[in-house]
Amino acid sequence: MSPKITTELLKQLRQVMKNPKFVQEPVQAYIVPSGDAHQSEYIAPCDCRRAFISGFDGSAGTAIVTEQHAAMWTDGRYFLQAAHQMDNNWTLMKMGLKDTPTQEDWLVSVLPEGSKVGVDPFIIPADQWKRMSKVLRSAGHDLVPVKENLIDTIWTDCPQRPCKPLITLDLSYTGVSWRDKIVALRSKMAERKVMWFVVTALDEVAWLFNLRGSDVEYNPVFFAYAVIGMNTIRLFIDGDRMMDPPVREHLQLDSTLEPEFRIQVMPYGSILSELQAVGAGLSPKEKVWLSDKASYALTEAIPKAYRYLTPYTPICIAKAVKNAAETEGMRRAHIKDAVALCELFNWLEKEVPKGTVTEIIAADKAEEFRSQQKDFVELSFATISSTGPNGAIIHYKPVPETNRTLSVNEIYLLDSGAQYKDGTTDVTRTMHFGTPSAYEKECFTYVLKGHIAVSAAIFPNGTKGHLLDSFARSALWDCGLDYLHGTGHGVGSFLNVHEGPCGISYKTFADEPLEAGMIVSDEPGYYEDGSFGIRIENVVLVIPAETKYNFKNRGSLTFEPLTLVPIQTKMIDVNLLTEKECNWVNEYHQKCREVVGAELERQGRHEALRWLLRETEPLARVQ
Amino acid sequence: MSPKITTELLKQLRQVMKNPKFVQEPVQAYIVPSGDAHQSEYIAPCDCRRAFISGFDGSAGTAIVTEQHAAMWTDGRYFLQAAHQMDNNWTLMKMGLKDTPTQEDWLVSVLPEGSKVGVDPFIIPADQWKRMSKVLRSAGHDLVPVKENLIDTIWTDCPQRPCKPLITLDLSYTGVSWRDKIVALRSKMAERKVMWFVVTALDEVAWLFNLRGSDVEYNPVFFAYAVIGMNTIRLFIDGDRMMDPPVREHLQLDSTLEPEFRIQVMPYGSILSELQAVGAGLSPKEKVWLSDKASYALTEAIPKAYRYLTPYTPICIAKAVKNAAETEGMRRAHIKDAVALCELFNWLEKEVPKGTVTEIIAADKAEEFRSQQKDFVELSFATISSTGPNGAIIHYKPVPETNRTLSVNEIYLLDSGAQYKDGTTDVTRTMHFGTPSAYEKECFTYVLKGHIAVSAAIFPNGTKGHLLDSFARSALWDCGLDYLHGTGHGVGSFLNVHEGPCGISYKTFADEPLEAGMIVSDEPGYYEDGSFGIRIENVVLVIPAETKYNFKNRGSLTFEPLTLVPIQTKMIDVNLLTEKECNWVNEYHQKCREVVGAELERQGRHEALRWLLRETEPLARVQ
Repeated sequence: MSPKITTELLKQLRQVMKNPKFVQEPVQAYIVPSGDAHQSEYIAPCDCRRAFISGFDGSAGTAIVTEQHAAMWTDGRYFLQAAHQMDNNWTLMKMGLKDTPTQEDWLVSVLPEGSKVGVDPFIIPADQWKRMSKVLRSAGHDLVPVKENLIDTIWTDCPQRPCKPLITLDLSYTGVSWRDKIVALRSKMAERKVMWFVVTALDEVAWLFNLRGSDVEYNPVFFAYAVIGMNTIRLFIDGDRMMDPPVREHLQLDSTLEPEFRIQVMPYGSILSELQAVGAGLSPKEKVWLSDKASYALTEAIPKAYRYLTPYTPICIAKAVKNAAETEGMRRAHIKDAVALCELFNWLEKEVPKGTVTEIIAADKAEEFRSQQKDFVELSFATISSTGPNGAIIHYKPVPETNRTLSVNEIYLLDSGAQYKDGTTDVTRTMHFGTPSAYEKECFTYVLKGHIAVSAAIFPNGTKGHLLDSFARSALWDCGLDYLHGTGHGVGSFLNVHEGPCGISYKTFADEPLEAGMIVSDEPGYYEDGSFGIRIENVVLVIPAETKYNFKNRGSLTFEPLTLVPIQTKMIDVNLLTEKECNWVNEYHQKCREVVGAELERQGRHEALRWLLRETEPLARVQ
Repeated sequence: MSPKITTELLKQLRQVMKNPKFVQEPVQAYIVPSGDAHQSEYIAPCDCRRAFISGFDGSAGTAIVTEQHAAMWTDGRYFLQAAHQMDNNWTLMKMGLKDTPTQEDWLVSVLPEGSKVGVDPFIIPADQWKRMSKVLRSAGHDLVPVKENLIDTIWTDCPQRPCKPLITLDLSYTGVSWRDKIVALRSKMAERKVMWFVVTALDEVAWLFNLRGSDVEYNPVFFAYAVIGMNTIRLFIDGDRMMDPPVREHLQLDSTLEPEFRIQVMPYGSILSELQAVGAGLSPKEKVWLSDKASYALTEAIPKAYRYLTPYTPICIAKAVKNAAETEGMRRAHIKDAVALCELFNWLEKEVPKGTVTEIIAADKAEEFRSQQKDFVELSFATISSTGPNGAIIHYKPVPETNRTLSVNEIYLLDSGAQYKDGTTDVTRTMHFGTPSAYEKECFTYVLKGHIAVSAAIFPNGTKGHLLDSFARSALWDCGLDYLHGTGHGVGSFLNVHEGPCGISYKTFADEPLEAGMIVSDEPGYYEDGSFGIRIENVVLVIPAETKYNFKNRGSLTFEPLTLVPIQTKMIDVNLLTEKECNWVNEYHQKCREVVGAELERQGRHEALRWLLRETEPLARVQ
């Protein structure tokens, strides 16, 4: 990896920072955040502005360019990568280290008095604007919105914003029609006495209209906004994709619908002016509901007194609770995914000893097997295929420079998943194709105990996921071990593999309570720098639990694993398991046998079936 | 309990709310919070203004009186009590219920336009002022400070503010001299670049100067403030207690000390004017450090730009980590406390079957046995002595109207503690003096499993207590049971029985990480309305844990029980315990035998010793 040479680019950027064609007054600093206008976790190439100006293309980072300086803030995952990818024009600001200044404090320390700091108001979330603006103002500077994105003005070969065809999802996939979703949304709006709701997150637009796209890699979403009134529906979307007959029919664009269900289709770029018109026409007590993560530009379009901001929108919360059709779809997707992984692991078991399988080959093979399954669309994230020391790099993705060959002497960690039309998968298995050491087995078994502790936990209705995080760590903690990431995230239904508002993490205290129908991952791990990584991840569904008693009639919940892929018993030190844990493994494997076995049989994949049967032999605990 | 008749009082209050002698402009509403000027949990009789005006004397509640209305906000613990104690003039606002408005929203709904809402600026914490003031202002009203407390103007027989003699604590109790504490505080101030520190919490003043008082029941504190500069020490305290020779000597008031250790003693009431003088004399970049819970009056004395506010002060954090002298004192106090409880339980075992022991008699007897111990000062909180259904009332205190007789047919719950000159205790034991039912034993055993899960937990350095809360609930959750309170609180060293900044609760996310030397309670429970209450509470010390591995060199922590009182084995269903849990009980009881047994022997308390030996027979688990 050689660094990107940015001298010329920075010179150009500093020129446009003073060019009256783009800025009302010169700005002495310009902020280039990571995100897109929808605060997406994954972004399209045309939105990779920070990577363009700096060379650093990790998933998190903020660049700030002043007359004299260019600085990049990123977190511990990316210190090495950022240092490699950026040239000497850039100073790396290591977030999380004690002496690293915040962006605001750094700006205050380097700027001349009374400076203007520019940022694209569409890219910066309103809550972040508020925080930065306050600090800058108290130091005598001004945060100013710069309408035209200054990176775009110098990015001559900027890729076009994607505008790919849409997929319509019928009731058999979604369980609820888009009209009924609008009705439910309006009833939530009425409850909170708001007249308008602005949909800014891409997965929320997709979910609401039962549409999917492919504008962003791994995320079946498309660029669009929506503004829902009590009697109007406006969808802001570009391209001729709205001319597609199935889409027109799905949205009933050509039918004579009741007026409150007629969708007005408008250009993507007209959202701001339309929202400003809404804002200008409000009468007293008419509120507009927005996420507090919506962009500063859209938030400002509504006068402050009329804004109703919440951290989680009603769509985010409704989307998290999967209905019967979505749950059944997720089950089907996970069975198909398990078939693909049984094929893969059976293949790896034969091929790895030959010394010809690299991390990239293994990842490609996994994709190949998945793509053979019905309704496969694409992967749900970049496959983490890592062997030996690469396994300890939590967000590893094999590239030619790091590509390592799998062997019978190293632990192999595969974290992968796919988008199927009926559901989204995300599974991690840690395998050894030779003979694991006692220490490797010991660590694996602690991780497994943590995985089971969460998966088998019973907890009252209304419990937030973060209260379960320590269950996943307890066995590791007992031996002085731990892992430095959360235990689980929400998973979409043929949507983003990471979604809110629930999760299982010591860090997330803003999570919403777990409810039956929510789907999260359960993925504790253990990582030893330079040696190996272990992670065991299932996607699990929150279900009601039967308990002996029922305190205050609250009811209880537990998890049902949707992922049905064998956990390598060779890696388990059975003597470290309790009887209950041992039974959990055996029952889990029994279910894999029955459910995935039947599907392997049906698909005529007899060799993979034999592998499954061998891998799911019951454990026997020595008393 | 008959309600207090408040018609006349409210009339008087409404008059002074318009009286120009007390208010610059009439106030249309007056807020009467629970607290005192130091945001104490326990308050002196002269500060019980909310109880005076309303009749409701629970520990938490806020009264608001307008021209037309009188309303009281309190939480679920006190709904019944408040309803009984208040007359028809009052509306009960049940906090935590969905339809109950906040104080601000209620005010906005009932006040005429442009109203003034008054409050004593010494009683309301600055953070709460800010929140209320914002909402009121946005609705066109004003929150205004009323210098003279309006309740005091109509409270003709208001008790005097207590001003009791002080106790000096020498190094054998405190481990660190007050001078060294000042040095350490100044070094924390220098680190944060602040020039002044204002001590507003009573236990922080007491801890800093190694002094104790008895101005507030159960809390060995005294009314005082302190302002610490880099070269000055000002102590604001009333009465002739500063004339007491031991106190003068302890504080070296008559010695020729280095100027930076000379204590200026000033009247308690002069804090505001002195602080205003400090505020007026600040040069740029001179900051003043205050708790964000300090009163609005004191916070406002410092111009906004010069304030440095934190949720926990450096004294709060230093005080929480007990040194060797304090830890040894706490150990001694807990051994004495255990002796008293062995005597008590031995006595109860003989007396209860006679049917003559009431809850009040039992509580008095507990105090009598405690008072026989060396260095006993007072109780550390009102004894919760509760039998049968009274045990299910979590904050129960026996009074003649509710006083129930202990019997061999009911569970008895005793939550009690004392202040000794060397330490503070707080212990709960749940006993049956007849034959418990299988169900009672089952519930008790789940609670015990939770208690052990926390007490035996091993966790990394830097872990916050709230991450351990679910361990205490897991066994109950498995059967659909739970308890509706936190699991533990910080405990002072001959100081307040509840102290910050650490604790173990699903509610506390602002807690500071646990450190070796911190002391907390571990007190899960289970309560069945109308039947019984179960709680098992030890005070435990955070200590380093030896572990097999040591991830990232972080080190691990665990707990050592300081409380050494037998846990009634008759109540345990041994078959529900794991081998590890069974061993924990047996080792705990072995330690009670050795340590408390030796002390009982030394004190010649042979009958109680025999009781202890009988109660600590090892459990035998059926394999």
